[in-house]
Amino acid sequence: MNSADLGRRVGVPSTALFTDQYELTMVQAALKAGTADRRSVFEAFTRRLPEGRRYGVVAGTGRVLDAVENFHFDDEMLGFLRDQRVVDAATVDWLADYRFSGDIWGYPEGEVYFPGSPLLRVEGSFAECVLLETVILSILNHDSAIAAAASRMSAAAGGRRLIEMGARRTHELSAVAAARAAYVGGFHTTSDLAAGFRYNIPTVGTSAHAFTLLHDSERDAFRAQVESLGRGTSLLVDTYDVTEAVRTAVEVAGPELGAVRIDSGDLLLVAHRVRQQLDELGATETKIVVTSDLDEYAIASLAAAPVDTYGVGTQLVTGSGHPTCSMVYKLVARAESADPAAPLLPVVKKSLGAKSSRGGRKWAARRLDGHGVAEAEVIGTGEVPAELAAEQLQVELVRGGRVVAREPLEAARERHIAARTGLPMSAIQLSRGEPVIPTEYV
Amino acid sequence: MNSADLGRRVGVPSTALFTDQYELTMVQAALKAGTADRRSVFEAFTRRLPEGRRYGVVAGTGRVLDAVENFHFDDEMLGFLRDQRVVDAATVDWLADYRFSGDIWGYPEGEVYFPGSPLLRVEGSFAECVLLETVILSILNHDSAIAAAASRMSAAAGGRRLIEMGARRTHELSAVAAARAAYVGGFHTTSDLAAGFRYNIPTVGTSAHAFTLLHDSERDAFRAQVESLGRGTSLLVDTYDVTEAVRTAVEVAGPELGAVRIDSGDLLLVAHRVRQQLDELGATETKIVVTSDLDEYAIASLAAAPVDTYGVGTQLVTGSGHPTCSMVYKLVARAESADPAAPLLPVVKKSLGAKSSRGGRKWAARRLDGHGVAEAEVIGTGEVPAELAAEQLQVELVRGGRVVAREPLEAARERHIAARTGLPMSAIQLSRGEPVIPTEYV
Repeated sequence: MNSADLGRRVGVPSTALFTDQYELTMVQAALKAGTADRRSVFEAFTRRLPEGRRYGVVAGTGRVLDAVENFHFDDEMLGFLRDQRVVDAATVDWLADYRFSGDIWGYPEGEVYFPGSPLLRVEGSFAECVLLETVILSILNHDSAIAAAASRMSAAAGGRRLIEMGARRTHELSAVAAARAAYVGGFHTTSDLAAGFRYNIPTVGTSAHAFTLLHDSERDAFRAQVESLGRGTSLLVDTYDVTEAVRTAVEVAGPELGAVRIDSGDLLLVAHRVRQQLDELGATETKIVVTSDLDEYAIASLAAAPVDTYGVGTQLVTGSGHPTCSMVYKLVARAESADPAAPLLPVVKKSLGAKSSRGGRKWAARRLDGHGVAEAEVIGTGEVPAELAAEQLQVELVRGGRVVAREPLEAARERHIAARTGLPMSAIQLSRGEPVIPTEYV
Repeated sequence: MNSADLGRRVGVPSTALFTDQYELTMVQAALKAGTADRRSVFEAFTRRLPEGRRYGVVAGTGRVLDAVENFHFDDEMLGFLRDQRVVDAATVDWLADYRFSGDIWGYPEGEVYFPGSPLLRVEGSFAECVLLETVILSILNHDSAIAAAASRMSAAAGGRRLIEMGARRTHELSAVAAARAAYVGGFHTTSDLAAGFRYNIPTVGTSAHAFTLLHDSERDAFRAQVESLGRGTSLLVDTYDVTEAVRTAVEVAGPELGAVRIDSGDLLLVAHRVRQQLDELGATETKIVVTSDLDEYAIASLAAAPVDTYGVGTQLVTGSGHPTCSMVYKLVARAESADPAAPLLPVVKKSLGAKSSRGGRKWAARRLDGHGVAEAEVIGTGEVPAELAAEQLQVELVRGGRVVAREPLEAARERHIAARTGLPMSAIQLSRGEPVIPTEYV
């Protein structure tokens, strides 16, 4: 692990087995047939956005770069492949030397996307590119789903603060990636310590109901918390009676109390009452944090409530109804032969049914109207028209197997805000709709 | 990593930071207040099943045991907590020595559960138990959601084979846990190599459309695959024209062809046509594998089609509409003081609103009717009634910090089939319904 956006090592030593078996059996068959070295172009894209969503958010690109760099088979893995006869001995030998040596271009992390956007373009030999399919899709499909939900929540929250606190609702390592994607999508902090450790995302946390119940009274619990964590802490006020708890909280911490957290009940009503009570007690600077199965709609419905911070869990880490994206990784062009100079032929699956796609190595640009607002996602093959040259979306990520586009996570977060701001206003409507700009093929 | 159900090490060296920050700040405050050592009982349970579901499936227990065993703070983690001032120096020192030394009882993996079932009971000091909250819930909420979907799919599939192939649709390590949970829920194999490596789950895999497109003709692709992987391989027949492809497949591989895979179109119709064609070509033993956005309803709708194997991806790894469970981890009893002999007091949150639960250390039993079929989930505190003593559900998992209940994953899989078979027949109806047996508190 040596990514600039990694705080510290948490340790997935190799990503090479996050791979569907057929990637390896295809390599075996292609090696034997002499087709494994044909120069190939794979593209990751999605045919559609989740139903009703107006834009997608690219997330996970930094993790993809780590995954490509850490994609190598160690002796134990090779032994497993040999012992289980996943592939033959010649293929095991080939895998032992595997390092991706090709090129990757793609939408930078935080950018928005639309149906057909060529989010990632992977070029190299067939064998070296096909092996990366599963892990690239795992990362992009998961992280982009979370970032899309986060982006909607952050738009709904206006300028208010958002805490990611969904770790307990998803796989423990998904949770770390979710905190990262949520940050890209506009969240401010996370409760997940591993996300702080690994990605330097600011972490927060205060107290749960168990802490109050551990003590002989709510007052004892508040006093214990304030004595240890200071008056700036957040006290949880809904274990018993909220009004009583708010009174006790201010008595214990004084009007300098940092925040109170409300985790149940009618949040709109309770927030108003608590704000009034806090103000009457002189705690006019004390913040109100609400948590309790929030999603972007609940956040929006609290716009008029005196809430300072939203803590979001389940709905964030499950993509608010869309826990995955439908990105695919398709061979779009390949050489006629293994000769490095052989020209690339566009290829495309042609069976009947809905799963069609377009062949050829693609460029993408976002055409702007006279006011600088996006009006179309333009996708083509061949030369980029001069008038779109400045609006191209893909950037170089890996050159000859070497990652060339590391960046701090903060850059992706800022890019996302800029990209979203560049869309038509209706992008941030929460209601179901069509993609906010059309995709045009030229 | 030293679990019996682990094939080989994949390497999460410590689980200690898969933790919400407030677990640590609560420990800090409790240490200072002198309440951290109060003997405590936490229970993991869910207040409800996902809407319409008739039973839940416990999965992830083996991973929970690994997580508890690997929950320790290394120097780098302690440095992070110190540098970021997550907790004070005294707490960092306490964490440096942390090892769970308490007891855990719970439903064994693969067992079914209902609202209120005390799935896991964790006993020890408040501080040592509260720290485990997030990682325990992450694992149980994720893995049980996948296992529940898998169980419904396996019931719908009857005796037909099920391949888990959703790795590309979820986080790369979620995918490994999902393959494991799917196996517990009744799946037979996985395409995910890391799941085979780590958990010894049988892996399978053949070919993708890219492989066909790489070659100059479908015939070339089939020949390359058969020459390398043998006649028993599965050929993908829907890249161009299915009828043409099936003819070519049998010409190339002969009637010994292992299987054909269909990944698009009207699967019911296409499967019938392909079966007829295969039979006419003499390939009567060649299997038909279908894949393409299957869920339990699609599987059920293909019951009359000549399908041998279902490959399931997206809907499996996203829990078929319910990607998480709503399990919580609550303090239900604690000692009056830090004296190890102090009696336990039941505790419970009492605010208004829906999030109520029951205090006290619980037992659980499944009462059977005269035919040995489950008729109620019975939950109580105190002594277990004699007539239910033989039907108790909780087993000892950890004693004094030592894991005592390792088992092969196969045992959980078999337990699940037995547990599901012991439910009333309506349990496996796919239509929405109530929990198939009621929960009774005594």
